[in-house]
Amino acid sequence: MNGAQHALEAACAAGVEVCFANPGTTEMDLVTALDSSPAIRSVLCLFEGVATGAADGYGRILGKPALTLVHLGPGFANGIANLHNARRAGTPIVNLIGDHPSWHLESDSPLTSDIDSLASPVSKWVRRSNSADRFAQDMVEAIATAKGPPSGVASLIVAQDAAWNEASAGMPTVSVPESSLDEDLIQRAALDLKERGERGALLLGSRALRPSLEAAARIQAATGCQVFLDTFMARLEQGRGLPNFETLPYFPEQAIEKLSGLQAMVVAGSRRPIAFFGYKSIGRSELLPDDCECNVISGLGVDSSPALLAMADELDAPRWTPGQQGAPPIEPEGQLDTMNLGLALVSVLPENAIVVNESATSSLGWAVHSKTAAAHDVLNLTGGAIGQGLPNSIGAAIAAPDRPVVALQADGSGMYTVQGLWTMAREQLNISVIVCANRAYRILQAELKRAGNSEPGSAAMSMTELSSPELNWAQIAQGMGVPSVRATRAEEVVGALRRSFQEPGPMLIEALL
Amino acid sequence: MNGAQHALEAACAAGVEVCFANPGTTEMDLVTALDSSPAIRSVLCLFEGVATGAADGYGRILGKPALTLVHLGPGFANGIANLHNARRAGTPIVNLIGDHPSWHLESDSPLTSDIDSLASPVSKWVRRSNSADRFAQDMVEAIATAKGPPSGVASLIVAQDAAWNEASAGMPTVSVPESSLDEDLIQRAALDLKERGERGALLLGSRALRPSLEAAARIQAATGCQVFLDTFMARLEQGRGLPNFETLPYFPEQAIEKLSGLQAMVVAGSRRPIAFFGYKSIGRSELLPDDCECNVISGLGVDSSPALLAMADELDAPRWTPGQQGAPPIEPEGQLDTMNLGLALVSVLPENAIVVNESATSSLGWAVHSKTAAAHDVLNLTGGAIGQGLPNSIGAAIAAPDRPVVALQADGSGMYTVQGLWTMAREQLNISVIVCANRAYRILQAELKRAGNSEPGSAAMSMTELSSPELNWAQIAQGMGVPSVRATRAEEVVGALRRSFQEPGPMLIEALL
Repeated sequence: MNGAQHALEAACAAGVEVCFANPGTTEMDLVTALDSSPAIRSVLCLFEGVATGAADGYGRILGKPALTLVHLGPGFANGIANLHNARRAGTPIVNLIGDHPSWHLESDSPLTSDIDSLASPVSKWVRRSNSADRFAQDMVEAIATAKGPPSGVASLIVAQDAAWNEASAGMPTVSVPESSLDEDLIQRAALDLKERGERGALLLGSRALRPSLEAAARIQAATGCQVFLDTFMARLEQGRGLPNFETLPYFPEQAIEKLSGLQAMVVAGSRRPIAFFGYKSIGRSELLPDDCECNVISGLGVDSSPALLAMADELDAPRWTPGQQGAPPIEPEGQLDTMNLGLALVSVLPENAIVVNESATSSLGWAVHSKTAAAHDVLNLTGGAIGQGLPNSIGAAIAAPDRPVVALQADGSGMYTVQGLWTMAREQLNISVIVCANRAYRILQAELKRAGNSEPGSAAMSMTELSSPELNWAQIAQGMGVPSVRATRAEEVVGALRRSFQEPGPMLIEALL
Repeated sequence: MNGAQHALEAACAAGVEVCFANPGTTEMDLVTALDSSPAIRSVLCLFEGVATGAADGYGRILGKPALTLVHLGPGFANGIANLHNARRAGTPIVNLIGDHPSWHLESDSPLTSDIDSLASPVSKWVRRSNSADRFAQDMVEAIATAKGPPSGVASLIVAQDAAWNEASAGMPTVSVPESSLDEDLIQRAALDLKERGERGALLLGSRALRPSLEAAARIQAATGCQVFLDTFMARLEQGRGLPNFETLPYFPEQAIEKLSGLQAMVVAGSRRPIAFFGYKSIGRSELLPDDCECNVISGLGVDSSPALLAMADELDAPRWTPGQQGAPPIEPEGQLDTMNLGLALVSVLPENAIVVNESATSSLGWAVHSKTAAAHDVLNLTGGAIGQGLPNSIGAAIAAPDRPVVALQADGSGMYTVQGLWTMAREQLNISVIVCANRAYRILQAELKRAGNSEPGSAAMSMTELSSPELNWAQIAQGMGVPSVRATRAEEVVGALRRSFQEPGPMLIEALL
């Protein structure tokens, strides 16, 4: 058994089931080893950013890592943007990066580059595996590190001779770290919120599922505190029958306003809130008032529910019961705009769906109405590296084949990883892609104004407009094997979504805004 | 005048004329400054790899840098693969990477990452510009560094406050390095080749234009040495009326065979030849015999013609005169294959065209026949980071608007930067794209066999096949605004190319192999 077979066998034993791959010559031994690892599903992606973004979506849903298989430094580099998002989401991922055989590195052949330097900024753990006898051990350590807690991105750079040489070592083992609660901190934080009432706030971040949400609702009931969600939740359960909380605004002046007067904040599953961008007119990164105490009871990549449950119990908070459920929203009609587009999705969204939201400025209707939809998961753009949506939805659909997945996708950001459409078709994934086609980097038009350029000239405007030529997403999708329709009215979106949820495989709806 | 305006004014003064851009919020002050810099043409790309690959193509043709304008670490990361190719080509490029305002960095906001760590592997020079008063000076130093000699990639990370603050400094200046020849080395190398006759060889690398080629032909005439071209020339003039030399084979066993028996090699514009990949069955990186002397008279990113001319003069070599020119090749007919596809292009290629060749295993006909085409430039994939072709052709077309540009593009690699089609349409560039649609990563099928997997199983094969579903490039192109046709016969390719050369703007020909 060579190093590659040994390492993949170890990965199977550690529970790895999927490999999102875009291999090259230096990964051929690993590709061959996949033949003898039928428990690992290999999913070919035509661009590495699709592979890493898919692994991110997969990890967010299952809480365990998929592998990515990418080719040397440049191949890995193509996956960095979505790994940046994964890093900000605390998603478990193991990147397997094939490098030249160890003896070939010093010749600095054309595809050689400093992979460590490329991998470090997006990885909590980077290691080189240079021997067949170490490879399987390095693999299980990568998997354990990715799982955490805290969970995150682990990158294993594999010399090709470590893959092709015979491996003599036995099956590796790895110890799993114990996570423990800081009882004192939780007690103090609980007391803080109880004393402060509505001058206190709980911030839920990153990954908030039903147990965390219910605990937060209990804490709110017991203390009168406010509860906020991070602006970009890696994964959030929301909708009818769930406690639904307010999202912290994106623009810092609005968030500062919202948080003004707070004396205490308790953060679970995230970190102290800060501004996404720094603006000249605001001149600060902090969103909290300067005198606001801030306690982080659980950080990124850690399940926040044990700490929140302990806090709710500490407060003797009563059990949470859902209130009366409102009726589902009414299906909208009329010429499409950002409001009725979101409402169209909300009105037909099946229970237990997964919505991958990268709709940027087209998200208005979704933001306003999504909490009235049937209960679902939503995955948001965590790191601001656009091009997350289509790949994330691939990973989510593979992680949860029985759940409908919707990619609510802005057109500008969708183009960065447009190759993902092909993998959706190839794997016949149940993904309904809604492209919000406003043919602009609309957010940049807003940001230009915020930067003081209220009347952009032609050079500046040309950097924000996608209208010349107009992208035809329906055609692009068909060219990659995904059936598509174009819609100009809300009822057309409703109808197309209904059909899409009923039929297997992907469908793309180009919503012309 | 703010820092951004000051720096762009300095860039104009230093001869910068084009900015390939995919900006975000942190670059809004630079985007606004572009409005007051009409001498800089802003070209929007829908993915950063298109921007960097375009800058590479532009720099290869004009020998001076374009700017790229990209957004923080993840935006830059999307451009790394093509910067890797540019680095291996020694192409002058200046990357302008917008970062957060300096005071916002310590808060580690979502889009923050270690940009220096990402930029270093592909840049010969990385600097942070943190003050408006320094920005213009840093810009001209970046431009001078990119120009060299040696030319290469310079990356300037600009804090947003350096762009938006007022700049008080005057116009910056920079001294240009003198390049000088090592006369002793050239003399020794000339003597070496003269003594060795056909046991000596000249290797031309990277960038070989007519003056270098003619000097090499003179040296060959005077010494009887062999002359080889690097396997992947960044830019080569070839075709009828030019000295045409043999290309070093790609697979190392073939190159080792070709170079066996050599006692001396002189390298101009490149470095000692080494294997692209390391193979278990070969076990070495070196292509030259162990006892072969090797002298590099000019390296990567340096114009090789002065050294070669000096060497030819040292040898009192006679002037080169072209031999009798053969007739142009005859237009092929029949069902398309890799041989007649290349011949179809060769038979109709206009004089002075630029061919960007990323056709990988579909290049057979081109490789065999291209030296019989009308004189043209060809740009090859230098660093092995696939996805160079479409972006390179954009840059070449903008650098040389009066020359027809052909992108001879494999389908697998074309998908990595497929977004480039949109920029071709937007800028109405005279690019004829030939997609060699074999619907496979054919090179990987060969590499699987070379790695000992002669009968790949379904998992391995699925990693090399693009046939399920089949990409429809004609549709994808139309979706991005590029007119397209599909061809199954050589005469259809000939006809489509003819039309494409006559009509302005881009056209895509999907050649079904």
